[in-house]
Amino acid sequence: MRGRATVRGSDPDAGVLADRLAATRGLSEALVAPLSDADATLQSMADASPAKWHLAHVTWFFETFVLRDHAPGYQPFDAGWGYLFNSYYEAEGPRHARPARGLLSRPSLSQVLAWRAHVDAALAPLFGRPELAPLLELGIAHEQQHQELLLTDIKHALAQNPLGPAMWDAASSPPPSDAGPGAWHEHPGGIALIGADGTGFAFDNEGPRHRVLLEPFALAAQLVTNAEWEVFIADGGYSTPTLWLSDGWAWVRAEGISAPLYWRGHEHFTHAGWQRREPGAPVTHISYYEADAYAAWAGARLPTEFEWEAIASGDDLAGGNQLEVAGPVLPAGSASLFGDCWQWTRSAYLPYPRFRPVAGAVGEYNGKFMSGQFVLKGASCATPRGHSRASYRNFFYPHQRWQFTGLRLARDL
Amino acid sequence: MRGRATVRGSDPDAGVLADRLAATRGLSEALVAPLSDADATLQSMADASPAKWHLAHVTWFFETFVLRDHAPGYQPFDAGWGYLFNSYYEAEGPRHARPARGLLSRPSLSQVLAWRAHVDAALAPLFGRPELAPLLELGIAHEQQHQELLLTDIKHALAQNPLGPAMWDAASSPPPSDAGPGAWHEHPGGIALIGADGTGFAFDNEGPRHRVLLEPFALAAQLVTNAEWEVFIADGGYSTPTLWLSDGWAWVRAEGISAPLYWRGHEHFTHAGWQRREPGAPVTHISYYEADAYAAWAGARLPTEFEWEAIASGDDLAGGNQLEVAGPVLPAGSASLFGDCWQWTRSAYLPYPRFRPVAGAVGEYNGKFMSGQFVLKGASCATPRGHSRASYRNFFYPHQRWQFTGLRLARDL
Amino acid sequence: MRGRATVRGSDPDAGVLADRLAATRGLSEALVAPLSDADATLQSMADASPAKWHLAHVTWFFETFVLRDHAPGYQPFDAGWGYLFNSYYEAEGPRHARPARGLLSRPSLSQVLAWRAHVDAALAPLFGRPELAPLLELGIAHEQQHQELLLTDIKHALAQNPLGPAMWDAASSPPPSDAGPGAWHEHPGGIALIGADGTGFAFDNEGPRHRVLLEPFALAAQLVTNAEWEVFIADGGYSTPTLWLSDGWAWVRAEGISAPLYWRGHEHFTHAGWQRREPGAPVTHISYYEADAYAAWAGARLPTEFEWEAIASGDDLAGGNQLEVAGPVLPAGSASLFGDCWQWTRSAYLPYPRFRPVAGAVGEYNGKFMSGQFVLKGASCATPRGHSRASYRNFFYPHQRWQFTGLRLARDL
Amino acid sequence: MRGRATVRGSDPDAGVLADRLAATRGLSEALVAPLSDADATLQSMADASPAKWHLAHVTWFFETFVLRDHAPGYQPFDAGWGYLFNSYYEAEGPRHARPARGLLSRPSLSQVLAWRAHVDAALAPLFGRPELAPLLELGIAHEQQHQELLLTDIKHALAQNPLGPAMWDAASSPPPSDAGPGAWHEHPGGIALIGADGTGFAFDNEGPRHRVLLEPFALAAQLVTNAEWEVFIADGGYSTPTLWLSDGWAWVRAEGISAPLYWRGHEHFTHAGWQRREPGAPVTHISYYEADAYAAWAGARLPTEFEWEAIASGDDLAGGNQLEVAGPVLPAGSASLFGDCWQWTRSAYLPYPRFRPVAGAVGEYNGKFMSGQFVLKGASCATPRGHSRASYRNFFYPHQRWQFTGLRLARDL
Repeated sequence: MRGRATVRGSDPDAGVLADRLAATRGLSEALVAPLSDADATLQSMADASPAKWHLAHVTWFFETFVLRDHAPGYQPFDAGWGYLFNSYYEAEGPRHARPARGLLSRPSLSQVLAWRAHVDAALAPLFGRPELAPLLELGIAHEQQHQELLLTDIKHALAQNPLGPAMWDAASSPPPSDAGPGAWHEHPGGIALIGADGTGFAFDNEGPRHRVLLEPFALAAQLVTNAEWEVFIADGGYSTPTLWLSDGWAWVRAEGISAPLYWRGHEHFTHAGWQRREPGAPVTHISYYEADAYAAWAGARLPTEFEWEAIASGDDLAGGNQLEVAGPVLPAGSASLFGDCWQWTRSAYLPYPRFRPVAGAVGEYNGKFMSGQFVLKGASCATPRGHSRASYRNFFYPHQRWQFTGLRLARDL
Repeated sequence: MRGRATVRGSDPDAGVLADRLAATRGLSEALVAPLSDADATLQSMADASPAKWHLAHVTWFFETFVLRDHAPGYQPFDAGWGYLFNSYYEAEGPRHARPARGLLSRPSLSQVLAWRAHVDAALAPLFGRPELAPLLELGIAHEQQHQELLLTDIKHALAQNPLGPAMWDAASSPPPSDAGPGAWHEHPGGIALIGADGTGFAFDNEGPRHRVLLEPFALAAQLVTNAEWEVFIADGGYSTPTLWLSDGWAWVRAEGISAPLYWRGHEHFTHAGWQRREPGAPVTHISYYEADAYAAWAGARLPTEFEWEAIASGDDLAGGNQLEVAGPVLPAGSASLFGDCWQWTRSAYLPYPRFRPVAGAVGEYNGKFMSGQFVLKGASCATPRGHSRASYRNFFYPHQRWQFTGLRLARDL
Repeated sequence: MRGRATVRGSDPDAGVLADRLAATRGLSEALVAPLSDADATLQSMADASPAKWHLAHVTWFFETFVLRDHAPGYQPFDAGWGYLFNSYYEAEGPRHARPARGLLSRPSLSQVLAWRAHVDAALAPLFGRPELAPLLELGIAHEQQHQELLLTDIKHALAQNPLGPAMWDAASSPPPSDAGPGAWHEHPGGIALIGADGTGFAFDNEGPRHRVLLEPFALAAQLVTNAEWEVFIADGGYSTPTLWLSDGWAWVRAEGISAPLYWRGHEHFTHAGWQRREPGAPVTHISYYEADAYAAWAGARLPTEFEWEAIASGDDLAGGNQLEVAGPVLPAGSASLFGDCWQWTRSAYLPYPRFRPVAGAVGEYNGKFMSGQFVLKGASCATPRGHSRASYRNFFYPHQRWQFTGLRLARDL
Repeated sequence: MRGRATVRGSDPDAGVLADRLAATRGLSEALVAPLSDADATLQSMADASPAKWHLAHVTWFFETFVLRDHAPGYQPFDAGWGYLFNSYYEAEGPRHARPARGLLSRPSLSQVLAWRAHVDAALAPLFGRPELAPLLELGIAHEQQHQELLLTDIKHALAQNPLGPAMWDAASSPPPSDAGPGAWHEHPGGIALIGADGTGFAFDNEGPRHRVLLEPFALAAQLVTNAEWEVFIADGGYSTPTLWLSDGWAWVRAEGISAPLYWRGHEHFTHAGWQRREPGAPVTHISYYEADAYAAWAGARLPTEFEWEAIASGDDLAGGNQLEVAGPVLPAGSASLFGDCWQWTRSAYLPYPRFRPVAGAVGEYNGKFMSGQFVLKGASCATPRGHSRASYRNFFYPHQRWQFTGLRLARDL
């Protein structure tokens, strides 16, 4: 997990919180319903984790930071599992090496599901304790983050199989809403308030809220599409070094990159297997380097995280294509700031002024990841509804592209 | 698979052959009975393959080289699986990368078992065709080789799990038979006949039978034991560079080696999980480098493959601890030349005089592995009974030790 | 080289420019006077280049972008050398691989010096052409950058030799000036103007000048010293994961880091060989990760580049310990913002608002390095005098520490 | 150095020995005469060493094992140099890492030459002590081995320079003597005596002399030529996997191998720079894998080391093209068993029966290299005259090809 709850902001009614936890936990289980035990055990690269591991890790989080710390007499379901399912909490002691998560055929998927049920039952009595609400909120947000990772990780794993297995049938995607070609959101510049405003849940890295001075700029109303990306490729985008950051060009050559991840001819790999790409859908599964090169080629630039947030603060979050509790269908094709894909910004992931990591393992850390990564804003088709907000700061290394990552251009005014 | 049938030697009665095939196929399935789909999908290093992959690969071998080539009208069970389950036959075209075998959650274990049944049924009519007997014999021998690999590979995979899962209950091992301390088989030297004598099945690399001139030597009657190895360790064996081959010393330092594979305190990892080591049992899971260093420390040497075979030619194969059809229990502890563990020789794996690889994919190749490896003789507790003979040449790289490898000393007379 | 001249700002008198060029070229040659041909050929890591290569590269820069492009009829001294001494200008075509620069024993040091003299002579007539002044200014600034790299690279190379060779005798260092313990420069916050003001030479990445909003902060008046760093070590700084960025902690463990580069007992390696460290001198040769961990341990933080520049804008650059034309002595020990060592900021190296890389090879690029690196401000004891200014943005990857890198703490007010 | 003197065999007249030492030492210095200090400092891969290092290492050998151990009161020329110039003698303590030998610009070439003169002078009085003759003989043989390595290592280093520098002018090569197309040396088989016969100097790995049983065979009278190799290439030799050993095919693909080392169009790199290849000259700079693949393509095989030696035992060593004391010219082109290039055999480098490494550092070790390498017989154009004999066993890893390595076919009779 990345982040902690801010203390302010969270005091929901206990029943509502219980319902939200149940819905979140249920969605995780719905996501893995199409997976076999073997599917759920796969790890296809060190950046990714097995689906089963995600299910277990979020459960370990509740068992450790809620039940162990706050439910008197609670005994861990299995004393050996903490070592396996701690992700990176140094304060919780040594743990199983991340690249070896795919070697854990035991516990089985059904054992992990049994653990989940056990923990859910043990959590039930705690909803009446208001002081635990922020921690339970954090657990929900944490599990939502892992739902997205679960989907992108299993997609990557299944893509390695030459048989091209599908988790779901292909959904017919709604046609992308059309903001009109060349439509831009313009902003006059000035001092903007950036960061979480304290009215709802937020991770610690979204604050403190602070002032940022902006120059006049415009943000594209539409995401860059597959069709536009094909023009970039046809124009030699991947073979023109002057378009690229130096690190990006080295990456392109070392890895032999010539298209977004999961592209093959006119198809791309999806949770429904290999499917024909829709030209008007947003391009996705691109690295920061690719996004930056495209922007250079297009005579534009990427927005800063502050510009993006200034525009998005008024957005109602509606219309975007995001993960529904009702059904895990992942088509793509809308014009909203939120949904479809995360949008690379040119902002390095750094602390806001007066940011301080909090003490203790739960607060370990958004802060410790603050070097070498870039901020992404918005949300993707794999982001659970209810997990999006303008102040949200997602972050990945500039070469990573197995998330649903895309781009939205900006320019100076 | 390694090797091809020699044309001579094989003409069994069709019913006997059918029974042997059924027994061999049944043993493979018995071996995986304790494994889940996820267990059977694990690949813990590039040298190893998933259990499911072994089951499928040997089936692909029968489907391709017997059914496709000799059963008119036979259609492959699934046209996409040949790509997945070809091991290294260049003549059969491109194939799935070996280190990525562990990323195949599909087909599932049960699908592979269904394929096995389908192929078995299709093979039934072919037993009446004597010209196919050598190929079927080869298929049996090939599957037996993979049974041993399946056992050593799944052992390695399960050993990576901090939970230390067991496939079977621990068996009580019979006390090792005692050849008497310091007992040696002496040989006066002279010209020995080496290689398969044409009276039964043999791989191509076991021939041609030829003469080798031996000097007088002695071969230890007992394998080196765990207790003896502990003395070697206590005497600084792993920290004395002058005992080691140069490549071996580099390996010890680079890998931080200080004990046989699977040792932990007084325990070792087995198919029954972590168990206390028996001091009198043969040491196993050692590399060639370790075997050679031990021999140097003991003031002895490893035998050549010719010396070993000259002594073993009269051996009756009885008494050794090998894999039984009846039950896959793997204790260890006998004094026979065959069984317990493979024995490193100081002979590099090279072609016998006048050896020629045969044409075609089936004959691809013992020959192509003839550089950089060393010959092991005997058989291990994981070698199926019926798969052992004095002329058998097993071979591995000198750093490899996930097989049941041990050593038997030799000295000059 | 990194950067281009801004067009504004530069129109010095031709004679002054000629004198400055001569002084700069002469300093380069003075720096290598103690080096043998073999010394000057060494490359000890891919990040570093041979001293001879630096001498040649800056000469190639003048020969290519000034003489070839602007001196009619000029013929390259040696047609094959452009391939060897182009650094990274994609627009100038393929070039010798950077990690293989140390394999060039030819041309020899004396051949390179002869080339320098030839180019200097060919440049003489061009000082009368005012339109070339910005390009010549750029060439001077470029050569000054490489003077610093030459010194840090040869230091690294000589440090690899177990004999610990010295380039120079040890100089007696002046005692560090004392700003008083705990002295801080305080700043009330507000809108600061950041970036080059157009009154002198500047690289393109120093502009455009723009407004930045600052919160109230304080910047330490003194650099952190060796003695203070020893307290950090003694307090377990290098073994406390919670002090470190995640990437930093991975680096510490993978590389076995436990002290600044070049430390050995109470000594450190210098251009004068191994010398006793002075407790009151600024700590140097530390990575960003180390600087950040120290700041966390000290309950402070690193400044942003904007905070540093806001304080420094009024600094007179006097007092710092920097490279003199008169003599290449490199002691350390002052309290100035400029000199002694470069100071890590917490600002990622990113483009200023409205920054645009210019067209053509000369402008290739500060821009292309704008991912993954952090900004350093100030100057070091190896930075030539005249090459420092408040708007200067140096940048390196967070793990790099073979430059004279140190830190100055900041805190919120 | 590889090997030790056998005690038997060596008792030359002191004056003759002194003359031979002087000639050998002088040849080493003649070889480096065309090299600058920087040339002599280059190391282009971990397998190779700087020319200066070779000069120093052989001097360290005399200083350590002769002067230190046998000249009372002798003091090392420089106490710190033993650490630098020990190659791999574990018994002599820790030493400078091999891949870092190219980082030693100090001591300079002239300092090393001064050391050589000092040691030569100190050795003079020792020629009157017959008990030291075997050790001095060993020192001479050791230095001769390093003369060949010096030549092949500097060739490799200069080849990395895009300028293609030459050490010497190209010599006009004598036309290859013609043994007649298809000429073969036939051998009836039987028991051959193999190994050094005790009549002259030999390394320990050449004994003990022992009997080997040979089958009838034929050995080609001519080395395979450049023209023949071009036919192999044109016939798809490098792209036909079935011709290759499995390890060899993996090497071809991983390294992108498509021709012998140093080939470029119709040229090859030599000590005289890039020169046109002579079609009739022996092909050289090939790996074992390439030699084996060629033999498979040609329908032949490589000889064993025993076959080669059985034929060569009667050879008079005349006619081959080897390194002369008079002048280091390295053309290529004769038909002798000795000279032109080393010839790969299919024999792994293993101990002869009853071989035992001797105690002490001098005897460290031919034995310790006895895994993973193959034996080469003969001598090359870079092997000093007087350093060749039928029992000589050279050895390298199967992928190595920076030595002058070629092949001579064999076939069964």
